[in-house]
Amino acid sequence: MREIFEAELKQIGDDLVAMSRRVEHAIGAAGEALLRQDLALAESVIADDLAIDALERDLDERCVLLLAQQQPVATDLRVVVSALRMSATLERMGDLARHVAQVARARYPHPAIDPALTGVFTEMNDAARRVAQRTTQVLTSHDLTEAEGIERDDDLLDSLHEETFRVLLGGTWTGTPQQTVDVTLLGRYYERFGDHAVSVARRIVFLVTGDFASETRTR
Amino acid sequence: MREIFEAELKQIGDDLVAMSRRVEHAIGAAGEALLRQDLALAESVIADDLAIDALERDLDERCVLLLAQQQPVATDLRVVVSALRMSATLERMGDLARHVAQVARARYPHPAIDPALTGVFTEMNDAARRVAQRTTQVLTSHDLTEAEGIERDDDLLDSLHEETFRVLLGGTWTGTPQQTVDVTLLGRYYERFGDHAVSVARRIVFLVTGDFASETRTR
Repeated sequence: MREIFEAELKQIGDDLVAMSRRVEHAIGAAGEALLRQDLALAESVIADDLAIDALERDLDERCVLLLAQQQPVATDLRVVVSALRMSATLERMGDLARHVAQVARARYPHPAIDPALTGVFTEMNDAARRVAQRTTQVLTSHDLTEAEGIERDDDLLDSLHEETFRVLLGGTWTGTPQQTVDVTLLGRYYERFGDHAVSVARRIVFLVTGDFASETRTR
Repeated sequence: MREIFEAELKQIGDDLVAMSRRVEHAIGAAGEALLRQDLALAESVIADDLAIDALERDLDERCVLLLAQQQPVATDLRVVVSALRMSATLERMGDLARHVAQVARARYPHPAIDPALTGVFTEMNDAARRVAQRTTQVLTSHDLTEAEGIERDDDLLDSLHEETFRVLLGGTWTGTPQQTVDVTLLGRYYERFGDHAVSVARRIVFLVTGDFASETRTR
């Protein structure tokens, strides 16, 4: 019984890693589509999001079956419940990558990002990619230094997000309303991406250390 | 054993309703703070969001304990897992109300909404309040006609959201970048509010009818 449980739990962990790898790929591709006006890449991110959604459904179904058949308690139960929540978070990260790709597609062949902000969004995209890679790492290895790296990159995303507002609201911005709308939404998508990664990281820290405060700290 | 389970499940249902009532109050108050520049009301929405977050934590803990102690299977299990997900969704709706209130607070004593858009945001706020009231109703009564009403109001929120873009991008918009940013973010908050309510409604429809397609329909 215990062996079956361990095997199924390992499968759930592998599924989370597979979802996270897809999210990692999606955010990288979405950023490239955005910064290089790559329509085909944007289309592929949008289409592939359905696969991430399907992985979430499969993973959730697996978790519910595991709860029903193995009736885990204590830490085992918390691991399964955390997996359910992390799959929802990863799915949401996939949605955000899709939203970025949709902006890139809507503006094609023009760039959605005004030259005044290309540098900031290049940095945001780099930070988001790192956050996604670290999320896969933390799910794979439960390495808490990766979790700390996610917190740092999330702080960086927050300050880059504030930087977008400084550019938009500093009095020298001459972009069109469409450009203002795009920067506002894209900035928010990237900022939320960091929040979601932090949520996954804190759940892992909680599972590894039992430090509940780290999971529930108010953001 | 069954009686204890039923009592605990009822408590979880009551907690969800209590959360939903608080969210309903928060969105109504946030909208009023936004449309009438009521700083005290905005502050109260921001402060009260902590209570919604606390309710989510309590409810989740209750669900995990119920899973551990009662080891439900089949429909009972799905009800508990759905409660976990609905509490996360309601918490997110509370966050969105807080975000609306934060915009109202940041612009005070000025209105965040340009007169050209007051009508649209008044309608959005009305639709969001209805959606919140219907969410409480559907959680209380499992009345599927309320769930249909949520879908309709969500469609209305989507079309009002599009209307904000028509105003911003129609060529006659003369708002400042700050006003453009505010309308963009507020429009998105209201639109997301409908999505979350639909998610709660579909979970209830699923629990009542077993129609899994209704729960997982891609948005």
